[in-house]
Amino acid sequence: MSYAQQMIQTNPSPAVGGDALAACVEACFDCAQACTACADACLGEKNPDMLNRCIRIDLDCADICDATGRIVSRQTATEPQMVRAALEACATACKLCGDECDQHGQHGMEHCRVCAEACRRCEQACNALMGQLAA
Amino acid sequence: MSYAQQMIQTNPSPAVGGDALAACVEACFDCAQACTACADACLGEKNPDMLNRCIRIDLDCADICDATGRIVSRQTATEPQMVRAALEACATACKLCGDECDQHGQHGMEHCRVCAEACRRCEQACNALMGQLAA
Amino acid sequence: MSYAQQMIQTNPSPAVGGDALAACVEACFDCAQACTACADACLGEKNPDMLNRCIRIDLDCADICDATGRIVSRQTATEPQMVRAALEACATACKLCGDECDQHGQHGMEHCRVCAEACRRCEQACNALMGQLAA
Amino acid sequence: MSYAQQMIQTNPSPAVGGDALAACVEACFDCAQACTACADACLGEKNPDMLNRCIRIDLDCADICDATGRIVSRQTATEPQMVRAALEACATACKLCGDECDQHGQHGMEHCRVCAEACRRCEQACNALMGQLAA
Repeated sequence: MSYAQQMIQTNPSPAVGGDALAACVEACFDCAQACTACADACLGEKNPDMLNRCIRIDLDCADICDATGRIVSRQTATEPQMVRAALEACATACKLCGDECDQHGQHGMEHCRVCAEACRRCEQACNALMGQLAA
Repeated sequence: MSYAQQMIQTNPSPAVGGDALAACVEACFDCAQACTACADACLGEKNPDMLNRCIRIDLDCADICDATGRIVSRQTATEPQMVRAALEACATACKLCGDECDQHGQHGMEHCRVCAEACRRCEQACNALMGQLAA
Repeated sequence: MSYAQQMIQTNPSPAVGGDALAACVEACFDCAQACTACADACLGEKNPDMLNRCIRIDLDCADICDATGRIVSRQTATEPQMVRAALEACATACKLCGDECDQHGQHGMEHCRVCAEACRRCEQACNALMGQLAA
Repeated sequence: MSYAQQMIQTNPSPAVGGDALAACVEACFDCAQACTACADACLGEKNPDMLNRCIRIDLDCADICDATGRIVSRQTATEPQMVRAALEACATACKLCGDECDQHGQHGMEHCRVCAEACRRCEQACNALMGQLAA
């Protein structure tokens, strides 16, 4: 069992979202890491100029995933509007970053291909958790 | 002239949003700081139990303001949908946190009163920048 | 293979620290998450007053682990003094937070027990990576 | 009076470091912002390749300043070893980033010149606060 799952189960306050919660926490931190690393990898490529947009979107997406991962890690006195606002921004960021990285991944940028995967998974995890919160 | 204003003017890429941009950058970082400090001040009060919701919202708001402050500090290859997603989440977070802190501020919690001010200013700055981006 | 490992291998710049690098990246993000969640779980306990020091240390440790996890995720133009400064601060933070959480874990706070494990692992991973950087 | 100063004065727990504390809080957040903006400005320059090292150091320094700014914003149950670990890492990061940016600032990169100023000020503020904590 991952640390995130153990932390959810040992929190005295109820977990909102069931299995979707742990998946979202993990996907947000994984995506923050992947986007941070992808921005760096793009910067180290021979033609970083062509990757300027990708670097910028990676950095923005990393910041939103980081904030959202922290927010969904909390279970005390959860304010649904706050969580929803973060999840919506995160799903949008991951959609934009996944689309951008996907293009470069199809042209041989392997770090962009991996990062696009992390973005897709995080976008889905945010949407799944929003679905559970609305239920 | 603040560092934020100087950084905007010396960036080789155009600043979107005019004066609204510098105000938003500064308000986001100020609010991230105030919310971090307010969560801590609430924790140090005699009856932190009554302030649990305030602490939680402060922490969430700090994280979103921090991410948004970083995003609006960038001017290279700006993706409007990304910036808008962050600004919307930030305005919502600041509205929720400002409302919560305002209540406690009216009952003598001075750190909540100050934090509510920082939240109101940040909410307005995010909305003003969104208005400029849409224009 | 984790996303972190894949990101390391696909980065055009060399990975410093071999296997110790991926372990450190993952441990930093895991610990940032666990500390964020443990601060929240402590806040939700019946007697949060007794846990004030734990909450404070958790929040500080989360912030340092987050910054360090981002820094060790980068491989372009690595400045050894910068990486070492972050790793030293992170090992110290994880030692302090692990010691604090360990005490509460022994008195039935299960989230503190899990968090202490994440802190110990991160402390060791930072020390191992510092050892590799010095070699 | 700045928000940071007001937050310090309204916190129920004592402020360690006197005037040095508010100066350090503000310098850390200012430097996190300037370094984030400088990394972005460098990325937008005609020859970002020459600025790869500067971008990398800016990003690392921003992350450490951000974490340190949050830590020194807290006054509840302060653990001196934790604060010292963060301040030492931050002073080192600001020294390295200030030196790097200073070079580019002398060759016409105005954003690097401004960022170097923010780094110097933050380095001094961290050292001043460490001096107060030791006193």
